[in-house]
Amino acid sequence: MRDPNGTNHAGGTGVLGIAGVGLIGGSIAGAAKSRGLCTRVIGYGRSAARLNAAKDAGLIDDFATEIGDSCEEVDLFVSCVPVDRIPESVMHAARFMRRGGIITDGGSVKLSICNAVGVEPAPGIAFVGSHPLAGSEKGGFENADAELFQGRLCVITPRGGESETAITRVTEFWRGLGSEVVVLDPQIHDSILARTSHLPHVAAAAVASGLDSASARFAAGGFRDTTRVAAGDPSLWVSILLANRGEVSEALTEFISRCEAYRHALETNDATRLYDLLQTAKDRRGKLTFRE
Amino acid sequence: MRDPNGTNHAGGTGVLGIAGVGLIGGSIAGAAKSRGLCTRVIGYGRSAARLNAAKDAGLIDDFATEIGDSCEEVDLFVSCVPVDRIPESVMHAARFMRRGGIITDGGSVKLSICNAVGVEPAPGIAFVGSHPLAGSEKGGFENADAELFQGRLCVITPRGGESETAITRVTEFWRGLGSEVVVLDPQIHDSILARTSHLPHVAAAAVASGLDSASARFAAGGFRDTTRVAAGDPSLWVSILLANRGEVSEALTEFISRCEAYRHALETNDATRLYDLLQTAKDRRGKLTFRE
Repeated sequence: MRDPNGTNHAGGTGVLGIAGVGLIGGSIAGAAKSRGLCTRVIGYGRSAARLNAAKDAGLIDDFATEIGDSCEEVDLFVSCVPVDRIPESVMHAARFMRRGGIITDGGSVKLSICNAVGVEPAPGIAFVGSHPLAGSEKGGFENADAELFQGRLCVITPRGGESETAITRVTEFWRGLGSEVVVLDPQIHDSILARTSHLPHVAAAAVASGLDSASARFAAGGFRDTTRVAAGDPSLWVSILLANRGEVSEALTEFISRCEAYRHALETNDATRLYDLLQTAKDRRGKLTFRE
Repeated sequence: MRDPNGTNHAGGTGVLGIAGVGLIGGSIAGAAKSRGLCTRVIGYGRSAARLNAAKDAGLIDDFATEIGDSCEEVDLFVSCVPVDRIPESVMHAARFMRRGGIITDGGSVKLSICNAVGVEPAPGIAFVGSHPLAGSEKGGFENADAELFQGRLCVITPRGGESETAITRVTEFWRGLGSEVVVLDPQIHDSILARTSHLPHVAAAAVASGLDSASARFAAGGFRDTTRVAAGDPSLWVSILLANRGEVSEALTEFISRCEAYRHALETNDATRLYDLLQTAKDRRGKLTFRE
């Protein structure tokens, strides 16, 4: 699916660098290659064995276990490592890239990353934060999917000060992967995602922890769906939750109050109140625009 | 799929009576008919129009808007009305059924129903409580599925005092619909289900209520799955939650403590504690035996 105009969304002859070739990084690599958005993909990671396997799987063309000299060839660098390591990887890549190089990321939290990195992590290198709203509880490049971003939203979080070129190229890159791009302030992004993603993750995990061995066989489809995200990688989620801990704590406080309202309605046998709470929940959920 | 021995699981020439021809009642009707477990199905409900539509859909053969004289023909009566109305419908049917008739139900809560109905709701009529662990947030007989019970668990909750015949016939009926039958004490059933179904419902609804219009478009797959059950019918859930309010309150208190542990870990920036909490959740969820 090469762009009919032959525009190279990854910039120039388009070498794409991806740090962290897991579910997101691997899907970006696969999508960029299958859509002809780049001439070459270089993967960066800590394990040569894993990177070699990703190369064998056809997701990347080359790899390095250090973000170093090979970044000189990279036109667009996307950091898909866990959020607590994104700033370091971005700063590192910025030091090696040529002037005009563009960096973005795939992190689920934006303010702390944008604060740490700034809009110009090295002279002539632009950073624009991104968060593709796509994923799965199944990590690893083995679960990568070149269609993962098709029809999904990708939030980009310029803070002012980035060049129009950089914003346009990052926007065009995500559009090239099939996503609709929405611009948000990083702080607003984090406040919204605390409520649409980070709190739901904590709630799902706190439900899942209530399952003991004796009751596990009586858990059916409702339990399975409600707790699905709790099967995700704990260390990835520690980074996300801590990187957004102010907003997540606040969302958790609001959530605990709502749970207490349910408990009060139960303790006072208040059917009307319980009905109102459940009806509000149903109505709010009805506003979801996301479909499979 | 008539039983090869020609055994009629619904008893005798097998007239099946079903009160409440919605998702569960309609699925039981459809499954019993397609598997040849009964000679005829009579549906009971409040709306003649709805019952007539269920008849047109081939789920029931006949219907009545009052549980009355026609119950004389019924060999096995299954009450699938909302849990707060199950006792009344059972007592009502028991008055009209012939001696030897058997009654069960499909309610998600068991102790209050078993207490209200007893093991012999009328002379010569046996009641054995049931709860098929199957369902969907989509109600109505239009969503009925004759395979809904295939491969699922059905809990039956005899309390002692029921005849072996009654227990066997109810067991065989659910087995005939494709389910594996497990016997539990009604109190234990309610304690387990508070944690595997009723609390997850409240948690999902309390997450869903946190969604506002501005953030709805940023909610993705994780939010959708975590809150799926919150799309269920509020009035059905009011009955379920109130009928099991002691256990659900207790489960909610435990759940709120777990949420507070997360909040504390976030506020103290405690990565180790957060990791332990998430890893426990992941491990417990890994014990789930339910698959699609």
